[in-house]
Amino acid sequence: MGRSGQDPEQEAGSATFSPSAELPPPSPADLDVLRRVGARWRVDDTVRALPVDPQADEVRTATGTGRHSVLFVPDEAGRLTATPTVERQDTVEGRALGGLRRLLLGPPLTSGAILRERMPKFLALPVLASDLLSSVAYGPEAMLTVLVLAGSGALGLSLPIAAGLVVLMLAVGTSYRQTVYAYPHGAGSYLVASDTLGPRAGLGAAAGLVLDYVLTVAVSVSAGTAAITSALPALAPYRVPFALAVIGLLLTGNLRGIRVAGNVFAAPTYFFLVAVLGLIVVGLVRAAADGFTVAAPPPTPAVEGLGLLLVLRAFASGATSMTGIEAVSNAVPVFRPTEWRNARTVLTWMVGILIVIFVGLVVLFHLNGLVPTADQTLLSQLARHTFPTGPWYALVQAATALVLLLAANTAFNDLPRLLYFMARDSYVPRRFLHLGDRLALSNGLIVLAVAAAVLLVAFGGRTHSLIPLYAVGVFLAFTLSQTGMVRHWRRHRERGWRRRATINGTGAALSALVLVTAAVTKFTEGAWVVVLAVPLLIHLFRRVRRHYDQVQQALGLHAVARTDDAGPAGDEPPPIVPQQVRHLFLVPVARLNQATLRTLAYVGSLGQPALALHVSPERTEADRFRAQWATWGDHVPLETILSPHRVIITPLAGYVSALRHSRPDLTLTVVVPDVIVEHPWQRLLHYRTEQRLRRTLRRHPGIVVTSMPTHLSR
Amino acid sequence: MGRSGQDPEQEAGSATFSPSAELPPPSPADLDVLRRVGARWRVDDTVRALPVDPQADEVRTATGTGRHSVLFVPDEAGRLTATPTVERQDTVEGRALGGLRRLLLGPPLTSGAILRERMPKFLALPVLASDLLSSVAYGPEAMLTVLVLAGSGALGLSLPIAAGLVVLMLAVGTSYRQTVYAYPHGAGSYLVASDTLGPRAGLGAAAGLVLDYVLTVAVSVSAGTAAITSALPALAPYRVPFALAVIGLLLTGNLRGIRVAGNVFAAPTYFFLVAVLGLIVVGLVRAAADGFTVAAPPPTPAVEGLGLLLVLRAFASGATSMTGIEAVSNAVPVFRPTEWRNARTVLTWMVGILIVIFVGLVVLFHLNGLVPTADQTLLSQLARHTFPTGPWYALVQAATALVLLLAANTAFNDLPRLLYFMARDSYVPRRFLHLGDRLALSNGLIVLAVAAAVLLVAFGGRTHSLIPLYAVGVFLAFTLSQTGMVRHWRRHRERGWRRRATINGTGAALSALVLVTAAVTKFTEGAWVVVLAVPLLIHLFRRVRRHYDQVQQALGLHAVARTDDAGPAGDEPPPIVPQQVRHLFLVPVARLNQATLRTLAYVGSLGQPALALHVSPERTEADRFRAQWATWGDHVPLETILSPHRVIITPLAGYVSALRHSRPDLTLTVVVPDVIVEHPWQRLLHYRTEQRLRRTLRRHPGIVVTSMPTHLSR
Repeated sequence: MGRSGQDPEQEAGSATFSPSAELPPPSPADLDVLRRVGARWRVDDTVRALPVDPQADEVRTATGTGRHSVLFVPDEAGRLTATPTVERQDTVEGRALGGLRRLLLGPPLTSGAILRERMPKFLALPVLASDLLSSVAYGPEAMLTVLVLAGSGALGLSLPIAAGLVVLMLAVGTSYRQTVYAYPHGAGSYLVASDTLGPRAGLGAAAGLVLDYVLTVAVSVSAGTAAITSALPALAPYRVPFALAVIGLLLTGNLRGIRVAGNVFAAPTYFFLVAVLGLIVVGLVRAAADGFTVAAPPPTPAVEGLGLLLVLRAFASGATSMTGIEAVSNAVPVFRPTEWRNARTVLTWMVGILIVIFVGLVVLFHLNGLVPTADQTLLSQLARHTFPTGPWYALVQAATALVLLLAANTAFNDLPRLLYFMARDSYVPRRFLHLGDRLALSNGLIVLAVAAAVLLVAFGGRTHSLIPLYAVGVFLAFTLSQTGMVRHWRRHRERGWRRRATINGTGAALSALVLVTAAVTKFTEGAWVVVLAVPLLIHLFRRVRRHYDQVQQALGLHAVARTDDAGPAGDEPPPIVPQQVRHLFLVPVARLNQATLRTLAYVGSLGQPALALHVSPERTEADRFRAQWATWGDHVPLETILSPHRVIITPLAGYVSALRHSRPDLTLTVVVPDVIVEHPWQRLLHYRTEQRLRRTLRRHPGIVVTSMPTHLSR
Repeated sequence: MGRSGQDPEQEAGSATFSPSAELPPPSPADLDVLRRVGARWRVDDTVRALPVDPQADEVRTATGTGRHSVLFVPDEAGRLTATPTVERQDTVEGRALGGLRRLLLGPPLTSGAILRERMPKFLALPVLASDLLSSVAYGPEAMLTVLVLAGSGALGLSLPIAAGLVVLMLAVGTSYRQTVYAYPHGAGSYLVASDTLGPRAGLGAAAGLVLDYVLTVAVSVSAGTAAITSALPALAPYRVPFALAVIGLLLTGNLRGIRVAGNVFAAPTYFFLVAVLGLIVVGLVRAAADGFTVAAPPPTPAVEGLGLLLVLRAFASGATSMTGIEAVSNAVPVFRPTEWRNARTVLTWMVGILIVIFVGLVVLFHLNGLVPTADQTLLSQLARHTFPTGPWYALVQAATALVLLLAANTAFNDLPRLLYFMARDSYVPRRFLHLGDRLALSNGLIVLAVAAAVLLVAFGGRTHSLIPLYAVGVFLAFTLSQTGMVRHWRRHRERGWRRRATINGTGAALSALVLVTAAVTKFTEGAWVVVLAVPLLIHLFRRVRRHYDQVQQALGLHAVARTDDAGPAGDEPPPIVPQQVRHLFLVPVARLNQATLRTLAYVGSLGQPALALHVSPERTEADRFRAQWATWGDHVPLETILSPHRVIITPLAGYVSALRHSRPDLTLTVVVPDVIVEHPWQRLLHYRTEQRLRRTLRRHPGIVVTSMPTHLSR
C-alpha cells in the first residue's frame, strides 16, 4: 500500500504479538563480533566429551516418583520439547496453587494458538463501540452536574453546549477516519505520534493513554455500579467491594485469554443500543404528545456564578462522552480486508450512533427538567420517568450496567497492547512483552487491575469525583495523534493532502481546546493529578529507556570488539576466551564439618589454586582451628583472619575485595557452603552466612560466588 | 569446692561469656574422623602454589580510594587481624548508618575488654536489689486492688494477708540462701532445675523466667510511668509513648555495654531506700501521735463477695512484691571472694529490707484508710498524705520512678544471659551466643525490648492489667528451682542435708501454692496467657533443639565414617575427597552477549565437561539461536529446550533436576550470568533469572549454583 511510508514488514510486526519478541535477533554487526570472538577460543577439545547423553531416556523421563512420566520429547532436529509434566510444581503448595490457577484460567496454551481472528463489521461494531457508547451513561450527567452549580436556571445552557460537543465529535471522528486510512496496520496514538512527531510526543500520548485506560476502568466500573445501585439502593453501601469484585472478574476473564471476548461483547452492546434508543424514541413520542413543553427543574440554589469558566468546565466534562472514540484506530488489523475501508465504515456508524444518543438524552433531560442527584443517575431518573411501570426501567438499567462493565474491558484489551509496543521500544519494563501461559499479556493486565483498584478505593467508587481526572489524558492523546497526522500529510503530500491536513488540523485544534479547558477548569478538582502525572510518566519512561540503553552498552557484543587480546587489566571486564582466565578459588570455612569438607573436595577436584579463609573472634580459637586443619591434612592453604570485634562477613568480604583490587587479572570464585533447611522458620536458627556473604559480595564487581548446598532432612 | 557435683571447669564456663562459644571445639572422635578423611585426599599437589601471596602488602592495604589505608595487620604467627578500616561499610547509606550507630553506641570493643568485674557488697546490694525493692511500688497496691472488690470493709484483711506474704518471703529467701551456697558459679533457676530435675524442668523454669523478664520490663516501666503521671497528671495521655521511649533508652544503654551499669545503679536505689524508709518512719511517727487510730477508708460498694478465692487472689497479687528476689542467685560470680558467703549476706539484707518496707507500707495504707484509685498510685497517695507540703512528696515520687525504671534494667541484664546459656544448650537460636561489637548480647537485648514494647502497647501501659500475668511465670521458676534443690540435697547427702532439704522443700511448697493460686484465681484476668505460653515456649525450645540435633546429625563428622570409599550412589551426599568428584557444568544461555560469553569462557577455562542450555518459546527462535551458536564456533555443546507455554525457569530447573536424578554420581554445577543493577528500582526492569533459578534449584538437593556477576555502571 505504501501510504504510510513505513517498512511494510515492520508495520506487520507492529500489530501482532510474538513470543520471540523477548529474544530479539542479533544484528549482522553483532554476528560478526561473535564470529571473531569465537575464533579466538582456545581450549583442549577433549573436554567436549560429555559424561552423559543430554537426551538419554533417563534424563527425559522421571521414574523417581513411582510412575513413569515423560518430561521432555525430542524432535527430528534434535531439540527437546518440555511437556506439561515438567512444568508441574514439585512442592505441595506449588501444586495446589497451580491447580487453582488452572481452575480459574484454564490449561496453558501453546504459542500456535495465537488468534489472528478477523471480525466482520457487525461484530466489530459492538466490540469496539462499547467503550464509546457507554460513555453517554456518565458524560451528559457530568456536564449537567457542573451547570447546576450555577442554579437550575443555568441548565438551559445544556443544549448549546451539547451542540458544541456534537461539532467536536464530528471533527474528531472525521479526523480518526483519516488516521485509519493512513495507518492501516494499527493507528494507536502512541505509534502515530512517535512516527510523525518523534519519541517525546509518542511518550506524551502514551502517558495520556496509560492514565486514560486506568481511569476508564475505574470510571466505567464505578458508573456501572452506580447504574445498579440506582435501581437497587439497598446495595449502595457495598459499592466499593462490588466494584472491586467486578475488576477482579474482568482481570480473571482477560487472563484466561481473549478468545471469547468478541462473542461476549456483541450481545450486551446491541442490547444497550436497543434499550437506549427505545428510551429516547418513547421519551420523544411522549414529549411530542405534550407538545414539547419543558418541565421546570426543581429549584436549585446557585453556588457559583454562571461565567465563561463554568460553561467551559461543563463543556470539558461533557466531552468525556466521547472517550473510547479511538478504539477503532487501535484495532484496524482485526477487520476483514480491505481493513481500512471497513474500519472507516464502522467508525462512521459509531460516531453517528453516539451523536444520536447523546443529543437524544440531553434533549430529554432538558424537556423533563431532570437534575443530577447523589443517589440516582440521570439515565435512571429518565428511565423511571419514561417507564413508570413495567419491566422496561429494569431493562434499561441492566443494559447500562452491563455495557459499562464491558467498556472497562476495552482498557483491559488496549493497555497491555500499548505497554507491549512501548516495551518493544524499551520505554517500559520488558516483562510487558511476555505472553503468559494463556497467551494473554498478563503483566499489563495485572498492573491495570491493581492501578484501577487503588484509584477506585482512593476515590470511594464515586464516578463524579473521578470524572475531572478523565478528560485530560485522553484529549492529550487525541491532540498529539491528530497533530501528528497533520505532520504526516505535510510530509507525504499525496493527492488531496491539504484537505486531509485541514481536517486533522481541526480535530487537533478542537481536542487541544478541550485539553486546555479540562486541565485549567478542573485543575483544583483533581485534574492536577493528571497534569502532574503526565510529565512524571514521561520522565519515568525515559529513565527506563536510558537504563536499557546502558545495559545494551554494557552487555552488547559491539563493546567486545574494543577489547584487545592482551587480556584484562585494571577494572576491565573478565576475559571472554578461556585461555585468558586465571583462577583463584576462595573457601570461607567457619568449622570443619561435612558441608565444609565436601566443599573443599569440590574445589580441590577442579585442579585450580585455592585458598581457605577462616575468620576467628579470638586468637585461641584461631590456633585451635589451625590445629584441626593440620589434623585434616592441610590439603588447602589456610589463611586465618582475626576479627577482634567479632564480625564475620565484613572482614571476609573485605579480604576478598582487597585481593580482587590487588590482582584484577585473577578471576576470584568464592565457594560458600550453604545449609538449606526444610521449613522457613528454621532459617532463624542459622546465621545464613551464604546469603549475607553473597549479598555483600554482590556490591563488589567481578567476584564469582558459588553456593554448595547441603539439604537437611531430605 | 566440689559441693555442686559438677565439673568445676564446666561450671566456670557457665558464668562467663566467650566469643568462641559460637565455634565450639570438635570432640576427639571428630578429630579422628577428620584425620581419616584427610588421609584419603588425593590431588595433584602442584596446584597448592597460589598465584598471589595472601598476605602481600597490596592485599593488606587499600590504595584504590585515593588514600593509603591498612586493612589487615599480620602478626608473628602468620595470622591477619582485621583493622576497623575493613569493617567500615562501603556504601554511602552503610557509612551513614554506621556513623549513627557509633554515635549512639560508641566505638566497637575488642574481646579483651570483657569485664570480669567483682563488686563489693555495698555496690552489689543496690545493683541486685533494684528489681526486688521496686516491686513494693506495685505489689501492695495490687493486693488492695483485689481486696477492695469486696468493698472497703474487706481492706482490713490486708494485715493478715501481708503476714502470710512475710512468711513466704522468709521461706523463699532462706531457700535461695541455700541455692547460692550450693551453686556458687551461678544459680539461675534454669541451670539449677536442668541440673537437678532434668532438661524438661529446666525448660519449664526458663519459659517462666523468659515471660517474667519480659513482664518485668513492661510492668516496671509502666509502674514508673504511673509514678510520674501521679505527680504530673498532665502527662497521663502520653503514658504509652513515654514508656516506649524509656524502653528505647534502656535498650540503647544496654547495647552500649554493661560497663557503666554498676555505678549508675547504686545511687537511685539508695535514694529510693532512704525516701521510702523516711516516708515510713514519718508516717509511723504521725500515726503514733494520733494514737494509731485507723482512718475509715472511703466507703466503696462491694462488687464481689468476700470468699476464700478473693483472699487467695489478693495473696497472689501481693506476692508480686517479691519478684526479683532471684537476682542474687543469678549473679553469685560477680561477688568478691568468698562469693557465696558475700552473696548470702547481701541476699539476707535484701529480704530484710523488703520485709520492713512491705510491712511498713501495708500498715500505713491501712492506718490512713487509703484505697486504690485509677489516677494515682497508693504510694503517691501515702506520700501526699504524709508530706502535704514541701519537696518531700516530689522526692518520693522521683525516687520511685527512677528505681522502677532501673528495675526494668535488671531484665535487660538477665534475659540475654539466660538466652546465652540456653543457646549453648541449643534450645534457642545460636544467635543469642553472639557478643555484639560492644560486647553486649545484642540479640537478646533487642528481642526483650521488642517483646516488652509489644506487651506494653497491647495493654495500653496499664500496670494493673499486666499484674495478673506477672506472678505465674516467676513463681513457676521459684518452684522448680527450689524443688530442684531438694533433689540436690537428697542426691549429695552432705552434712545437714535433711535440714537443708526441709528449708528448700518449704520454699518450694509455698512457691507452688502461690503459683497455683495465681494461675487459678487470675486465670480469666490474663493469667491464662501465661498458662498457655509456658508449654508453648517449652515446645518451641524443644523444636529448636531438635533442629540443631538434626543439623549435627546431618553435618557432623561422625556420619562421614559410615560413607565408604566407593563413592556416592543414589541420594548419597556429594563426595568428601576430590578424586571422587565427577563434574558436569551447565550454563543456561538466553542470548549471546558479553555476560554470557564471559560465563562460557569461565566454564571453558575449568577444563571440565560443560553443556549449554537454551530455553526457547518457539521453534523458529530455537533455530535462530542454534545458528548464532554455530557462528560463535560451537565451542560448548548446546541443548535447546522448546517451552511451548513460554515459561523459562521451570523447564530449565526440571531438566537440571532430571539430569541429577538420572546420574546422581555427577556433581552438577549450574553457572548463571547475573546482571547486577545500580539502583534497586532497576531490578523491576530485569527478569532476574539468576535469582529465580537459584531459588528454584535450592529445592533440588545436590545442585551447585554459581553466579557470574556483571555490574552495570561501575
